Amino acid sequence: MEPETAPNPEGEAPVRIRDEDGDLERDFIARVENAIAAEDAETARALVGDLHEADLGAVLEALDPEERDGLIRLLGPDFDWTALTEIDETVRNEILESIPNETISEGVRALDSDDAIGILESLDEEDRDAILAGLPLAERIALQRSLDYPEESAGRRMTTKFIAVPPYWTVGQTIDFMREEPRLPDEFTELYVVDPRFCFLGTVPLDRLLRAKRPTRVEDIMGEVAHSVNVEDDQEDVARLFERYNLLSVGVVDDSNRLVGVITVDDIVDVIEEEADEDIKRLAGVGDEELSEGVLQIVRLRSSWLLVNLVTAFLSASVIALFESTIERIAILAMLFPVVAGLGGNAGTQTLTVTVRALATRQLNPGNAWKLIGREALVGICNGLVLGSVTGLAVGLIFARPELGLVIAGGMLANQTVAALVGILIPLTLDKLDIDPAVASSIFVTAATDATGFAAFLGLATLLLV
Amino acid sequence: MEPETAPNPEGEAPVRIRDEDGDLERDFIARVENAIAAEDAETARALVGDLHEADLGAVLEALDPEERDGLIRLLGPDFDWTALTEIDETVRNEILESIPNETISEGVRALDSDDAIGILESLDEEDRDAILAGLPLAERIALQRSLDYPEESAGRRMTTKFIAVPPYWTVGQTIDFMREEPRLPDEFTELYVVDPRFCFLGTVPLDRLLRAKRPTRVEDIMGEVAHSVNVEDDQEDVARLFERYNLLSVGVVDDSNRLVGVITVDDIVDVIEEEADEDIKRLAGVGDEELSEGVLQIVRLRSSWLLVNLVTAFLSASVIALFESTIERIAILAMLFPVVAGLGGNAGTQTLTVTVRALATRQLNPGNAWKLIGREALVGICNGLVLGSVTGLAVGLIFARPELGLVIAGGMLANQTVAALVGILIPLTLDKLDIDPAVASSIFVTAATDATGFAAFLGLATLLLV
Repeated sequence: MEPETAPNPEGEAPVRIRDEDGDLERDFIARVENAIAAEDAETARALVGDLHEADLGAVLEALDPEERDGLIRLLGPDFDWTALTEIDETVRNEILESIPNETISEGVRALDSDDAIGILESLDEEDRDAILAGLPLAERIALQRSLDYPEESAGRRMTTKFIAVPPYWTVGQTIDFMREEPRLPDEFTELYVVDPRFCFLGTVPLDRLLRAKRPTRVEDIMGEVAHSVNVEDDQEDVARLFERYNLLSVGVVDDSNRLVGVITVDDIVDVIEEEADEDIKRLAGVGDEELSEGVLQIVRLRSSWLLVNLVTAFLSASVIALFESTIERIAILAMLFPVVAGLGGNAGTQTLTVTVRALATRQLNPGNAWKLIGREALVGICNGLVLGSVTGLAVGLIFARPELGLVIAGGMLANQTVAALVGILIPLTLDKLDIDPAVASSIFVTAATDATGFAAFLGLATLLLV
Repeated sequence: MEPETAPNPEGEAPVRIRDEDGDLERDFIARVENAIAAEDAETARALVGDLHEADLGAVLEALDPEERDGLIRLLGPDFDWTALTEIDETVRNEILESIPNETISEGVRALDSDDAIGILESLDEEDRDAILAGLPLAERIALQRSLDYPEESAGRRMTTKFIAVPPYWTVGQTIDFMREEPRLPDEFTELYVVDPRFCFLGTVPLDRLLRAKRPTRVEDIMGEVAHSVNVEDDQEDVARLFERYNLLSVGVVDDSNRLVGVITVDDIVDVIEEEADEDIKRLAGVGDEELSEGVLQIVRLRSSWLLVNLVTAFLSASVIALFESTIERIAILAMLFPVVAGLGGNAGTQTLTVTVRALATRQLNPGNAWKLIGREALVGICNGLVLGSVTGLAVGLIFARPELGLVIAGGMLANQTVAALVGILIPLTLDKLDIDPAVASSIFVTAATDATGFAAFLGLATLLLV
């Protein structure tokens, strides 16, 4: 990829801002830091004033907290507030807390509604209200309405700046309108066709408009299907719609099918990344942790997850306690605990992960759920047979006690079968109960596989070896 | 969301094909199945002939293998081959294997190059060559060239159908060209500006073209930065570029900066989903498993991962074996094994997941690696102190043996610290060695946390309790 460059303040060769891997150049950051330290507004402006919002955001993330404030002060009205939508929530909130609310009001005023919401929604209510109070009435009402929609809903993600045209306009009329109207969105790829009551009828991609003859009516080149979502729809469902039909934008309608905003594909790209990130992190018990969070906050989040797991670990411990006298007589059994617990846990995680992803991507549905449950059960039994025989053979040979091999083989067969079954049944059940299966499943799955694994292994040992 | 509908063959109300959750209607599938069973080509065509490729793909996935072949036969030339790009690789290959290669050649011929590659790249070389041999020379060469690029590279994902214009053309000239030229891509959002040697100069979004006056020259409304990628660049890097700069498309250039294709955002949406899916599944050891795979294939994939984990479990077992006489004397210790192994493993997975995602999204880079290693070490120590004291207190009280509480607390402190350190150091090292950290990290992390956890716990027990 071509490294990005910025114009050099001294008029020399342009300064490289990113290396070939796409990482920020350390040298570039150093120059910015020097300008901040010297309070040299001119150099700062020359270095970062014209940067793309994503690059400016990356620069802010790379700076120390005091430097961030310094840079924003130096840039003054030249600071591009959309940069704040490109950075970690933690960094953003740190920055926003150190800026007076009036300054934020002024910055937010220049933004598109979806960007303004992106900044406002992570603030606490008090600051949010203070910032909104500094805005002109019309903007305040519009933003307040968006904030009233549920978090992660279409209403939060939409922009209210779009071009709506009536179906009876001609292509020529529409093109002339766009040439003359000064208040168009900065960038757009489609027009939205609405009836006199502002009901959403469909979209017209610009390429169709360009290829059509001037007298053609807009309704005749409109897309066949008017893809729309309700303001309250979840952003993940909206993302699936984009993925499925390769859309550039969708109309966002209220309960009476009136077009109130649009969501464009560039925002959906972020939503998809965000939702996948959420799944992956929730499965591992690191919730919505962000990379910029401080030690204490991380410890709070992670240790509370680990404490929940501690409870399930004590559950396994109490299963083992039932067989204390068996272990006292055959201490060798304890050596095999990591094998029982480790492989059961891993197998459960495999099934669980496949199930959680299939639910998230809507590939798993009532139509194929039973088929997949049957398949997982079979996979569990087969894995149990494979792993059980390998482990049984190894253990039997190493300890020269074939009956010990038999015991571990039986324990693993039970363990693997249960792991596969709970690995799919638990997330399916949680999903039915409207609980995010990515968050809660792994605790139950581990508890179930550990408990049955130890019970089967030690139970068999007590029967056959004692 | 509005449920999708299809025209009803009997002229009644349209047939609903998806319910409100976006799942296919069982009733609709039943109708398609009936038409296939009755070999009723007319009804089949009326039901699915006009479906969007994504919906047709979903219908194919919902059918049994014989029904799929039946449907494709019934539709004949009306079958939309792009539907095959929308389905699981396993299902696609099953379908392709049952269709004669000549038929596939004819189907592929109608496709855009990126869709054709999507179908061809998953086939084995023999079939692929046979299908290519059935194509006209020009198409064969173009597809062969794309297939020569590495898997998951920009060259594989690009389409070679795009509109290139010289910088000196006027807006009017360009619009007239588009109105008259019949062989334009089906859909496009940007034009690509090239010099006489076909070097890539920049893009012109259609909205800029529409708003500009007819005499304006194309080069004057071209975007400031010409975002381009090399044909051999990894698709994940391309996706990051789209995300960062909210792009609609990028130019794909060869080593001499000549424009050979373009990648559009709708393909990138799929790449982002694919790459996140890959990470999440690799972390859980279910590799590139797809939902439609059969039991035996799944057992093969998953059990080989579990067998690798078996080796690390035996490693932990051998650590425990060193302390056999201690366990024989104090069998109670074995009860606490799940606590030591479980919490170490979970903590390691937390750090590992955060690190793997930060590497994948390019948030973790040489500039902040050391800072994050330090942070994780601190988090590990704090978690160890929190969990160690909770567990130590609980164990000391439950067993009325304070010294046992001290032993488990010490073991957990060691375990948590090591878990945090290896959780970040192992993926960083693998990444440096160009090994995908999502695949291999968890084995090493588990092995390291288990081994040190048991060694610390049992070592302390031997010192203090025996």
